Amino acid sequence: MTDVMGTGQVTSDLASAYDAERAYELDRAHVFHSWSAQAEISPMVITRGRGSHVWDGAGRQYLDFSSQLVFTNLGHQHPRIVAAIQEQAGHLATVAPAFANGTRSEAARLIASHTPGDLDHVFFTNGGADANEHAVRMARLHTGRHKVLTTYRSYHGGTELAVNMTGDPRRWASDHGSTGTVHFFGPFLYRSSFHATTEAEECQRALAHLEQVVALEGPSTIAAIVLEAIPGTAGIMVPPPGYLAGVREICDRHGILLVADEVMSGFGRSGRWFAVEHAGVTPDLLTFAKGVNSGYVPLGGVAISDAVHATFAHRSYPGGLTYSGHPLACAAAVATIRTMEDEDVVGRAERLGAEVIGPGLRALADKHERIGEVRGTGAFWALELVSDRATREPLAPYGGSSPEMAAIVKGCQERGMLPFVNFNRIHVVPPLTTTDEEAREGLAVLDEALSATA
Amino acid sequence: MTDVMGTGQVTSDLASAYDAERAYELDRAHVFHSWSAQAEISPMVITRGRGSHVWDGAGRQYLDFSSQLVFTNLGHQHPRIVAAIQEQAGHLATVAPAFANGTRSEAARLIASHTPGDLDHVFFTNGGADANEHAVRMARLHTGRHKVLTTYRSYHGGTELAVNMTGDPRRWASDHGSTGTVHFFGPFLYRSSFHATTEAEECQRALAHLEQVVALEGPSTIAAIVLEAIPGTAGIMVPPPGYLAGVREICDRHGILLVADEVMSGFGRSGRWFAVEHAGVTPDLLTFAKGVNSGYVPLGGVAISDAVHATFAHRSYPGGLTYSGHPLACAAAVATIRTMEDEDVVGRAERLGAEVIGPGLRALADKHERIGEVRGTGAFWALELVSDRATREPLAPYGGSSPEMAAIVKGCQERGMLPFVNFNRIHVVPPLTTTDEEAREGLAVLDEALSATA
Ligand SMILES: Cc1ncc(COP(=O)(O)O)c(C=O)c1O
Ligand SMILES: Cc1ncc(COP(=O)(O)O)c(C=O)c1O
Repeated sequence: MTDVMGTGQVTSDLASAYDAERAYELDRAHVFHSWSAQAEISPMVITRGRGSHVWDGAGRQYLDFSSQLVFTNLGHQHPRIVAAIQEQAGHLATVAPAFANGTRSEAARLIASHTPGDLDHVFFTNGGADANEHAVRMARLHTGRHKVLTTYRSYHGGTELAVNMTGDPRRWASDHGSTGTVHFFGPFLYRSSFHATTEAEECQRALAHLEQVVALEGPSTIAAIVLEAIPGTAGIMVPPPGYLAGVREICDRHGILLVADEVMSGFGRSGRWFAVEHAGVTPDLLTFAKGVNSGYVPLGGVAISDAVHATFAHRSYPGGLTYSGHPLACAAAVATIRTMEDEDVVGRAERLGAEVIGPGLRALADKHERIGEVRGTGAFWALELVSDRATREPLAPYGGSSPEMAAIVKGCQERGMLPFVNFNRIHVVPPLTTTDEEAREGLAVLDEALSATA
Repeated sequence: MTDVMGTGQVTSDLASAYDAERAYELDRAHVFHSWSAQAEISPMVITRGRGSHVWDGAGRQYLDFSSQLVFTNLGHQHPRIVAAIQEQAGHLATVAPAFANGTRSEAARLIASHTPGDLDHVFFTNGGADANEHAVRMARLHTGRHKVLTTYRSYHGGTELAVNMTGDPRRWASDHGSTGTVHFFGPFLYRSSFHATTEAEECQRALAHLEQVVALEGPSTIAAIVLEAIPGTAGIMVPPPGYLAGVREICDRHGILLVADEVMSGFGRSGRWFAVEHAGVTPDLLTFAKGVNSGYVPLGGVAISDAVHATFAHRSYPGGLTYSGHPLACAAAVATIRTMEDEDVVGRAERLGAEVIGPGLRALADKHERIGEVRGTGAFWALELVSDRATREPLAPYGGSSPEMAAIVKGCQERGMLPFVNFNRIHVVPPLTTTDEEAREGLAVLDEALSATA
């Protein structure tokens, strides 16, 4: 606190940050934004948040159907997470990773208590990209192999290796074919790469395809298969029953590690603690971020099996980062996970999907021709928008946008709702704590926006 | 807060985290540590910190001569940074990067006001590694070239590209020669790669060497030269006068971008806001982390010149991360930078080096044969320990440790001081806010530890 006016009045260091106009001007002058052409954006100023809502610079309220970037799983300003951050900040904000610290230990224990199988060891990172980078390094050193297989239609992060693992067009600018990543097709019945017409057929053919890719790339060259347990940004394609178990079996047969990227799908988003639970499959490594602490402090990590851990018992793991296991981030994780336990947030997400969002979206699909498919689980849903239901022609091209999509998004925003958008899809991914009533409100907005732009 | 006991008493979610024994046990059971053989470490539990001191599980106090990992530039629990974090947490802990936010804007403005030249645009990351990864991507897309030149004896981070940029042995396990990085020798008179005997000769020969490497790699293939402005972990080798200006000139002549990694050297550590100021050189991109907010919340970033920014004005920058410009991290940066301004922390660091640490270490060198060289500036100093002053045989091999080095470190810790150690070097890198008296105490401990193990 500083007496900036020299009046004896104490002013906080953040005082000027509450001015929305100034926020916008300084943003345009000094802030370089992710995935953007800097001169072509005019970002909405967010000044306040509470629960499922945020407010813009003009004081307008919005229902956040995007959970920001699918991370505020417990909504904005959850009092228990805020309290834990404030307490940890007041006690001990930071400690280097080489030391031990109670808050970090407790966060690791809590995470390990919810990860499947023997994924009991936690390497903390700052986010999802570095979690995936380190998981791949562990897999490479554990197997002594180099190649990593990942799917097209996936997102694994923005750093060089993670963006090369990524299957979406964000990879292209950084793809020089040099990171040892090979892409294959995952199951996606609505736009089947395998000419399948049923879930069972899609599953069986997708596994046969993967088996072939493994055989032709050479099993002995492959360290890991890395999959989003449910692909998120790429379209929330819940894998058909049997698919993940089939991948697990292929991995086991060839000594390949299975890495589940649960950065978006983990921590309740899918109506389970982790999306792999839907399939009853335990990966060798599981990466997480976002929901682990609702994004209140940057945190990610890798949950590690006993076998991979043993590889680095007497051999130094050649990786690390300054903020691994940051106490403030871990404090937010402790409060988030305990709240999820105490309030059955995961069960809540499951019911929200089964009873409100799922039925609500299907009702919209009955009404709006442009909804080609509704799919999802928990608080994790996608609408596939098409210009023609028969041909399934997407309402925006792969990797791009369209006036139609832009109009729908604008229609939602004008009606006070923030959707998550990717190409021709609208994702409905609100906080897991969204009330039934809020969810219905948001769906009503979507209905109106679709009608208004029909 | 939860009434966990059901007694009507409110207990914080972090209550159990204050138990040091439990912290240790859970650490060993569940926390995977950076750069370590997991079964061979027994990490010290840190339970408390204040200013230049931390306390272990048994309540023992230590003077922190390492600033943890050279990041607590304003020491532990600085009330003004703590207040800003608590205020921001209570107001709005998090916001996605696509929006604008006043705290982020203010942090960017403050950073831009201190970076040299026209480095006025800030892309925020979570730490140093991702800052370097994104700086390289920007340089590659700006120049349309791929190769990146970095020095041996350097550290740039733990993710795949950053660790391949790194010059120290931590690179080896991940080095498959596929990331487009090429290493050259920087100036280091004490262990000259150029058979030089004076600073001026070292400088001139190091530049001639770089010029040759550029010529033989092919100038038209090189996107960037990435340098720690003062190499940190690798040994705090302050570059000789003229070196950085010479590198700048080579870059300009060949259309190569100069990237200064100021993750460790930046924000006052060297007695200037940024270490490039000692040389009067403005890079095209400057990466930072650590000191930007004293490490209280994970934060890093890239300061970007107008020219590089212009490349991404109407062309989307193909990179990003969920927590880019995280408000909580930015709040800590705002309070840190304002405190540094108000209390002339940078001037303080300069004087601490010139008047206390530098003279103190040189006095130790007069007394202890094993000190081969003392070098540094500000709060950024290294002792080169040798078994023989004439041959300069290091007291531990490159990339390893030795019983002698372990004994000196143990001697310091037993006397209540935590040094920073790398191979055969002890670095004296305390918080910039360390008092003269504390600095003298720490130097006295070092003196005793060296005597006791002679
Ligand atoms: C599945 C998945 N993996 C990895 C990431 C990258 O995480 P971060 O942005 O924290 O690096 C994301 C981010 O959206 C993600 O959805
Ligand atoms: C000069 C330099 N660059 C980059 C890094 C990597 O930073 P981080 O550990 O935050 O990824 C470090 C960390 O010590 C560093 O000293």
